[in-house]
Amino acid sequence: MAGGEMERIVLVRHIDGAPTPEDFRVERLSIPELAEGQFLAKNHFVSCDPGTRSRLSPGASYAPPLQPGAPVDGFSVGEVIASRNERFAVGDHVALTGWATHVVSNGRGYAVKLPDLGVPESLWIGLLGVPGMTAWFGLKRVAQLKAGERVLVTSAAGPVGATAGQLAKLWGASQVVGIAGGPDKCQWLRDVGFDVAVDYKAADFEAQFMAAAADGFDVMFDNVGNAMIDRALPHMKMRGRIVVSGQVADYNTPLDRVPGLKNTREFIARRLRMEGLVVFDDLPGFAAAQAELAALIKSGAVQYREEVFKGLASLPEAFCGLFTGASFGRRVVRV
Amino acid sequence: MAGGEMERIVLVRHIDGAPTPEDFRVERLSIPELAEGQFLAKNHFVSCDPGTRSRLSPGASYAPPLQPGAPVDGFSVGEVIASRNERFAVGDHVALTGWATHVVSNGRGYAVKLPDLGVPESLWIGLLGVPGMTAWFGLKRVAQLKAGERVLVTSAAGPVGATAGQLAKLWGASQVVGIAGGPDKCQWLRDVGFDVAVDYKAADFEAQFMAAAADGFDVMFDNVGNAMIDRALPHMKMRGRIVVSGQVADYNTPLDRVPGLKNTREFIARRLRMEGLVVFDDLPGFAAAQAELAALIKSGAVQYREEVFKGLASLPEAFCGLFTGASFGRRVVRV
Repeated sequence: MAGGEMERIVLVRHIDGAPTPEDFRVERLSIPELAEGQFLAKNHFVSCDPGTRSRLSPGASYAPPLQPGAPVDGFSVGEVIASRNERFAVGDHVALTGWATHVVSNGRGYAVKLPDLGVPESLWIGLLGVPGMTAWFGLKRVAQLKAGERVLVTSAAGPVGATAGQLAKLWGASQVVGIAGGPDKCQWLRDVGFDVAVDYKAADFEAQFMAAAADGFDVMFDNVGNAMIDRALPHMKMRGRIVVSGQVADYNTPLDRVPGLKNTREFIARRLRMEGLVVFDDLPGFAAAQAELAALIKSGAVQYREEVFKGLASLPEAFCGLFTGASFGRRVVRV
Repeated sequence: MAGGEMERIVLVRHIDGAPTPEDFRVERLSIPELAEGQFLAKNHFVSCDPGTRSRLSPGASYAPPLQPGAPVDGFSVGEVIASRNERFAVGDHVALTGWATHVVSNGRGYAVKLPDLGVPESLWIGLLGVPGMTAWFGLKRVAQLKAGERVLVTSAAGPVGATAGQLAKLWGASQVVGIAGGPDKCQWLRDVGFDVAVDYKAADFEAQFMAAAADGFDVMFDNVGNAMIDRALPHMKMRGRIVVSGQVADYNTPLDRVPGLKNTREFIARRLRMEGLVVFDDLPGFAAAQAELAALIKSGAVQYREEVFKGLASLPEAFCGLFTGASFGRRVVRV
């Protein structure tokens, strides 16, 4: 297959504020010859993750920031079409990174041969990929959720939040409250098993939230950022845990305008624990969690929504919509 | 002894901002007759704890706020002088609560018969009391300090901070940095074994801090509050832990003027964990820790400073000085 052409998405400039499609461009290049130990995969789906935003500006992130001109390496799933690596054979289904039609990999880093769990392929960049694993290990390892506890999930209609809320119910949470934007998302949350859905776009959001928070929360699973955490802090119960899973509202905000956490006196008052999560720390546990979660998905116990965009060139638009509230479910791009 | 008179300190009004001696008054009252199960102790020393401040205004604290007119119940140490409680005999040395010359107790709550560990009695409201136990369990249970780690301690010349820094060194920390105000406190920190003392009152504080932080910190043991934590966050190392032990700079500040934590994106970037500590959660472990710490004090491995005020009436002034930087070491009042 070497000798053909491929496309990939390149960062045009460091982003200041909300990303726009013009911050990216499509680059065409020749597929390089494979060196010994490399393989070539054709991507079928490429993912949009809010977390990618934090790497598009200089500053703190879970990984070094990308430089202008660099290819963006979001997650992808595809099939090996040529190989000089003994661990990856032509026809293998693989999870990789690269906002691109093709990926050349040496098999190191995030390059995972996928088992056949009988689920749609796109789930490997969805519930069986970063979002689902973030929900799983965020609840299990970071929050250490116990049966009977009360859980608050923000950005709850997103793939991380929706999965976290459903898993919390399955794992015995006595009440799961989700915050999402708009009546459609809130209705869907109720449909998939959230006990309460609070609409942050509603005029009576504050009253809705206060009612939902009346009995307090043992766990806050936050995907939004400081403003939501600060609002929830006074409603955390003794020994409550706050999982810092994502900060989508803050990624686009210069540091001096990020809202500050002020209610920190609750930390001592109620022995709160707040902890940041990057799910790759849990990589050794992925395979077992994916098998369990796939079974829950196939049985209908865990549901999901997917928005499929067509063509690599649609990726910048799909990605930028993650920050406007336009997305509803997991956004994936069919290459 | 019943039938005599006692004095106690009473809160005059809820405090807004920094406390002043006029926010308290001395109240004289008759010592009540002992009911069955009660005992009467004469206090020898009463303590000044910054944490008491958080209970003198309405709002979040580790304990319900005191109401105007209520006696203030800081910690004390003294001797049983009359008893109708079979667990406490006349002559027993006891740790209790009460900013008062005498305490009537039913033996429940914080009422501890003290063993003879061969140390000065005032230490039972110092290094063997709340400050020392906070340092001990903050490092052991909350921070889970490991040998070879780098530690930052704020308000380091205070009894919690100074003990935490010395214990961290004894427990194998590779470097302990303390922040304190003024050259005298910083020199003392170096004398008792801190590797680096940073003077927050110095004109070149920022440069001092940046030099001390160059290799990052695994543990931040914070006694000051949001501004210090926010400053340290970008210098925390991967999987760093922040112990929220005290917030002396924020206790006197209305919530809307408390500095906010803005550098929270470091939580995900470096998997940070921040946790609040109230040391009474560790009460079952106090006796063993006190015996170990007393041995370290007697051997000179852990040093301390004490400022002794004379007479219960000096307590408000001694307490208010905790928030001005005037105190240097553990403040106790000899009743």
